[in-house]
Amino acid sequence: MPTVKLWTDAEAAADPRIHAVFNDIRTTRNSDFINNFWRALANQPALLERTWADIKAVMLAPGALDPLTRELIYIAVSTLNSCTYCIHSHTAAARAKGLTSQQHEELLAVIALASHTNALANAMQVPVDPEFLVG
Amino acid sequence: MPTVKLWTDAEAAADPRIHAVFNDIRTTRNSDFINNFWRALANQPALLERTWADIKAVMLAPGALDPLTRELIYIAVSTLNSCTYCIHSHTAAARAKGLTSQQHEELLAVIALASHTNALANAMQVPVDPEFLVG
Amino acid sequence: MPTVKLWTDAEAAADPRIHAVFNDIRTTRNSDFINNFWRALANQPALLERTWADIKAVMLAPGALDPLTRELIYIAVSTLNSCTYCIHSHTAAARAKGLTSQQHEELLAVIALASHTNALANAMQVPVDPEFLVG
Amino acid sequence: MPTVKLWTDAEAAADPRIHAVFNDIRTTRNSDFINNFWRALANQPALLERTWADIKAVMLAPGALDPLTRELIYIAVSTLNSCTYCIHSHTAAARAKGLTSQQHEELLAVIALASHTNALANAMQVPVDPEFLVG
Amino acid sequence: MPTVKLWTDAEAAADPRIHAVFNDIRTTRNSDFINNFWRALANQPALLERTWADIKAVMLAPGALDPLTRELIYIAVSTLNSCTYCIHSHTAAARAKGLTSQQHEELLAVIALASHTNALANAMQVPVDPEFLVG
Amino acid sequence: MPTVKLWTDAEAAADPRIHAVFNDIRTTRNSDFINNFWRALANQPALLERTWADIKAVMLAPGALDPLTRELIYIAVSTLNSCTYCIHSHTAAARAKGLTSQQHEELLAVIALASHTNALANAMQVPVDPEFLVG
Repeated sequence: MPTVKLWTDAEAAADPRIHAVFNDIRTTRNSDFINNFWRALANQPALLERTWADIKAVMLAPGALDPLTRELIYIAVSTLNSCTYCIHSHTAAARAKGLTSQQHEELLAVIALASHTNALANAMQVPVDPEFLVG
Repeated sequence: MPTVKLWTDAEAAADPRIHAVFNDIRTTRNSDFINNFWRALANQPALLERTWADIKAVMLAPGALDPLTRELIYIAVSTLNSCTYCIHSHTAAARAKGLTSQQHEELLAVIALASHTNALANAMQVPVDPEFLVG
Repeated sequence: MPTVKLWTDAEAAADPRIHAVFNDIRTTRNSDFINNFWRALANQPALLERTWADIKAVMLAPGALDPLTRELIYIAVSTLNSCTYCIHSHTAAARAKGLTSQQHEELLAVIALASHTNALANAMQVPVDPEFLVG
Repeated sequence: MPTVKLWTDAEAAADPRIHAVFNDIRTTRNSDFINNFWRALANQPALLERTWADIKAVMLAPGALDPLTRELIYIAVSTLNSCTYCIHSHTAAARAKGLTSQQHEELLAVIALASHTNALANAMQVPVDPEFLVG
Repeated sequence: MPTVKLWTDAEAAADPRIHAVFNDIRTTRNSDFINNFWRALANQPALLERTWADIKAVMLAPGALDPLTRELIYIAVSTLNSCTYCIHSHTAAARAKGLTSQQHEELLAVIALASHTNALANAMQVPVDPEFLVG
Repeated sequence: MPTVKLWTDAEAAADPRIHAVFNDIRTTRNSDFINNFWRALANQPALLERTWADIKAVMLAPGALDPLTRELIYIAVSTLNSCTYCIHSHTAAARAKGLTSQQHEELLAVIALASHTNALANAMQVPVDPEFLVG
């Protein structure tokens, strides 16, 4: 259960700012489906607009990292933040972008190994080698 | 300052288990440099052996994700765990594997955006859409 | 499902220590409602007593921060800890103390933005400016 | 030590995008001081522009939460993310906005208490009371 | 709902690698029960093999910490990572190894107190006393 | 550098509340050494009193878990919270209570393994087996 109302299509259509964002999501994704994250964020119109603009800029614009790689990074962060919603939505997004079973296994293996060595390095407070430092 | 002793090359050479791992690190990486993480982990020989074996299996073996992509995921996890050592060592490793400035910018942008939406999804406790669920 | 038993009113009434805390919760809040957190904590009487005493001292005593502001901080921490129960209970508490829709939007925006910049500052390991340090 | 270059004023002045953001920071804050966070973020111009725009919108625009309250929430998030840089910069910012010693004590007390009860609620997996749910 | 398929016994029996691990789990634990974690991890055979080998080495081999103490540490980590599955499975495991009600109370009290003082030490950025440093 | 003043012995002696707590720390520990955590917390007298009372109740009182086991749990939590100060102070405390090299290795191995499986269970969103649930 959410801590805020989930906006229906009818409610969204009645508010020009929400309506505009929902429309742009539908057009951009070429799909009628608006997932619950945006229906929840509709309670905060300015935040909705900024967050959607950021998603477009960061996840959808052409760039140096391909779209699937960006989703893998997103899943890693969401796992560490223990964000159930985001783990589900971005694993689904990665699959839609072609994530194979083997890639998923390797992603999980890297996330698990990094969590393992992060814990060790923090517990031992290992000093950073000068060789790693910039300039 | 570490919470454990950092093993010197001389100390490592005097212990066959540590010596074997340090040798394999040097051979595998084709470099004489042993970074502090392994010098600290040398206090725990079984853990040292297992962790190095995992690094070889997960980060260095051929697979479906290219080595740079694995480093990007590693950096994302290390950032979320606030692991100073790991952020430095894996940013350096990513650079050694060809990370460009633009790729770094996009990596940071995805980590930051995921942290932003994770916080929102958690704060609003957004229910997972049935459309995202497997099978 | 909890990992511990949730104490019913009848069970609580039969144990003097639990009974005393539950009574004080009811009197302090001027309500008969005892939420599940306390029913779970009743399994640990000393911890129940200490935690309730702390809640009274920190959240309910007069002070320099108004009660709603304290709830906003509580929600921020609970979101970062991904504590589903606490996010729900303290969002409800904030609403009971007058949280408006606009305040909620701004709270979410600050939590999200801080998560965004925290991730960036950690990933870049930005050195603290001397100007920020205390005398 | 940072993982990226910190831009000097001279370097920033030579790049129109960086120059424009640095100028706007100076004008908005009515101060010549540019803290290291922005000097590090200058390596990622698009992210620099977006992040500064967000800071202006979320932290500096008039709203329903006063500027000091927003800083308190920021400090809470930064503490939970163990972001040394952000803890320092936003504690300094809160002091500049009038944070008193007593307010700081209460802020720390709420952050600590929330961390305490978050851990308990998570460890006991306390089920959310229906009374807390929206709608 | 998981993000991956949960392998049934029939499916596991048809894959020699999965079959071997499931068999070893059953033999080692002297029980027919295979919990969902392993049924999910069966999608990633190499990771399944490595993770089960690690569990045997770290949690089940004789050592300097008794098995119940290892479970207490596991619960503490799982609580901090907000891992619902792991909190449940390792609290059940600790109970199977004799965890008493009083020990559980003390475990929760230490986890909560450490979370409280960790938050304070981070928020105040307390410098490490030289007396604590190794050698 | 801390975000608050560290109280000297002379300053502490001039404030009756601080003086009383510092005295009790010295008497209880049978040592003149007051570590920086308490010198920082002295800025918040009520929080200082409550936190020290909690430390005495949770870490020092006789109970069902021996003092070293409590320190191991404390180190695990502090590692997950990436609390540099607490990792150092509680590793030192564990050593003072007899932590052996082998116990330290096993502690690190459990923390690392739990971090590894927590990440996997969260990334796969493994559903809790009914067998694990209480009552």
